[in-house]
Amino acid sequence: MVRMVDVAKEAGVSIKTVSRVLNNEPHVQDAMRQKVRSAVERLGYIPSASARSLRSNRSYSIMLLIHDVRSMFVSTVQFGALQKCQKLGYHLQLSMIGSDQLKDEETLKAWFAENLRGGHPDGLVLVPPMANNPVMERVVKSLGLNTIRVGPNEIPHTARTASVMIDDRQAAHDMTAHLIGLGHRRIGFIRGKEDQDATHRRFDGYASALAGAGIAMDESIVLPGSFDFNSGLEQGDVLLAMKDRPTAVFASNDDMAAGVIMAAHQAGVSVPGELSVAGFDDNEIAERTLPTITTIRQPLEEIGMVAIEALVTAAGASLEELTSHVLPYELVERRSTAAPA
Amino acid sequence: MVRMVDVAKEAGVSIKTVSRVLNNEPHVQDAMRQKVRSAVERLGYIPSASARSLRSNRSYSIMLLIHDVRSMFVSTVQFGALQKCQKLGYHLQLSMIGSDQLKDEETLKAWFAENLRGGHPDGLVLVPPMANNPVMERVVKSLGLNTIRVGPNEIPHTARTASVMIDDRQAAHDMTAHLIGLGHRRIGFIRGKEDQDATHRRFDGYASALAGAGIAMDESIVLPGSFDFNSGLEQGDVLLAMKDRPTAVFASNDDMAAGVIMAAHQAGVSVPGELSVAGFDDNEIAERTLPTITTIRQPLEEIGMVAIEALVTAAGASLEELTSHVLPYELVERRSTAAPA
Repeated sequence: MVRMVDVAKEAGVSIKTVSRVLNNEPHVQDAMRQKVRSAVERLGYIPSASARSLRSNRSYSIMLLIHDVRSMFVSTVQFGALQKCQKLGYHLQLSMIGSDQLKDEETLKAWFAENLRGGHPDGLVLVPPMANNPVMERVVKSLGLNTIRVGPNEIPHTARTASVMIDDRQAAHDMTAHLIGLGHRRIGFIRGKEDQDATHRRFDGYASALAGAGIAMDESIVLPGSFDFNSGLEQGDVLLAMKDRPTAVFASNDDMAAGVIMAAHQAGVSVPGELSVAGFDDNEIAERTLPTITTIRQPLEEIGMVAIEALVTAAGASLEELTSHVLPYELVERRSTAAPA
Repeated sequence: MVRMVDVAKEAGVSIKTVSRVLNNEPHVQDAMRQKVRSAVERLGYIPSASARSLRSNRSYSIMLLIHDVRSMFVSTVQFGALQKCQKLGYHLQLSMIGSDQLKDEETLKAWFAENLRGGHPDGLVLVPPMANNPVMERVVKSLGLNTIRVGPNEIPHTARTASVMIDDRQAAHDMTAHLIGLGHRRIGFIRGKEDQDATHRRFDGYASALAGAGIAMDESIVLPGSFDFNSGLEQGDVLLAMKDRPTAVFASNDDMAAGVIMAAHQAGVSVPGELSVAGFDDNEIAERTLPTITTIRQPLEEIGMVAIEALVTAAGASLEELTSHVLPYELVERRSTAAPA
């Protein structure tokens, strides 16, 4: 059994230095860090996590809370978060929560009591729909957990919570303006889930771009959706069956846009010839449809990375305040949008 | 600060019973378990993970090792694993590994030394391509970690490793026989990544079904691939450009089948009218293409659940041997296959 003192001897440094390197403490010289890491590798030293945690009062673990519905958005954010955790020597611990657990504070507190039996993580990452849930907000605050919310949110930040997001409103404004610029005047919109803030922000962007161009909004071509493929397929059918159907549709995410494109194929309506379709997110599916989808690229992996970085920085420096980040987006023009016939 | 003794008092049971319930030990009566859990919830008791681990010598954590390439297959297995961990009071800890770390034993050992600084998990889940990697096999054995390999594999099991899989060879045989049954005699095949055992098993099933029907294999219509959409698109172009092109293609996963379908669309070849296309996995994309894809449904969420269950059972009972499982698959007939013209 290799002990810490053996590592110190092998590296020719003090035990305190070994400890500081292993605990990822700041202000250790790179050369020192390298010496200790080499010695750790040569000897195959594995300190006990439990002993390390008790010593440092940190868990070296970040919790990512996942909803019980699978989504490409979340798995991409997770992928970025995992890369960054790996790089910083942190564990990424996943937990899953359902809508039932979010219904009131008592239920959610009980859920945390059950799931934090593993001890407090050094930070928590919340994705939609948990990122913007008032019950979650109050419980996380009472637990005193450093928390990064991914996605736009209207909940005011406190000292221990911050967000990482793009400006959804402006991005949706830009996409709508892009369609208007192509010559479209009658542009349908498919909303996302009503409990997600992105739904309202993206709709606001759509509305403001229409208003800016002097186009009156027609509520009959603003349809409900749920951010999944099937709701896009269904609402695509509804839009295509209209007598005075729109020449373009802005589906507020790519899964729904792919559904609209399939509905158009099935109805024999050509995209973009007879109907332009725009999406949002730049999920994998945006390049797997025929035609490929014009969309807003969110830097989802980077969002995951930045969230972890913010939490680890705060934990390492015992910061009182987390930093929020607004990341840049990009309008990616592919084949699903064109001038109206 | 609520202590364990407070929970025992509130529940009207002994501290030992509280400890057994919190440690998820077997042979605790359901009524007892319920009493303790209610008391834990009422009081908001949160034991320290570190204290709990030191006490029980278990980490209550399973490590899922993820490759640095995102895949729908892995994210679905992960989803099942997470549900089961949640139910059993375990943490799911993710770690990411790249091909560079798998090149030799020394490198991989160093990787584990670095990444197990968090301590040994109670079990390890390996997915392709790590599930069938000889370097990984040797290192995991030397670490003495209980390990479940997801996917078919040719590596012999040891006492501490087992696998959860479907019978890929038989499933690929069935799919090929399905195409032959529709009247196809000239059936192309697109292989997956060569470092994955599924690639070879599925090809074997294809070959044996052809042989069984007395059809000579034509190597010129067996093409390389890499289990991703783009390789399906490229190989689809290759197949469609052949003078004597096949009437059916069996792409050995759905992402590649979707690529072949897009290649056919772009070439103006109708599916299944002029070309039948079959896939494997029953990923989400199999229902998002036009036409939808005939495929083999692997119970991926269930595979994740069964993997966790096997590891937790072994950890809880200090079993010497892990149990392997072969799960059932299903041939799902959708719109992409039909009799040849």
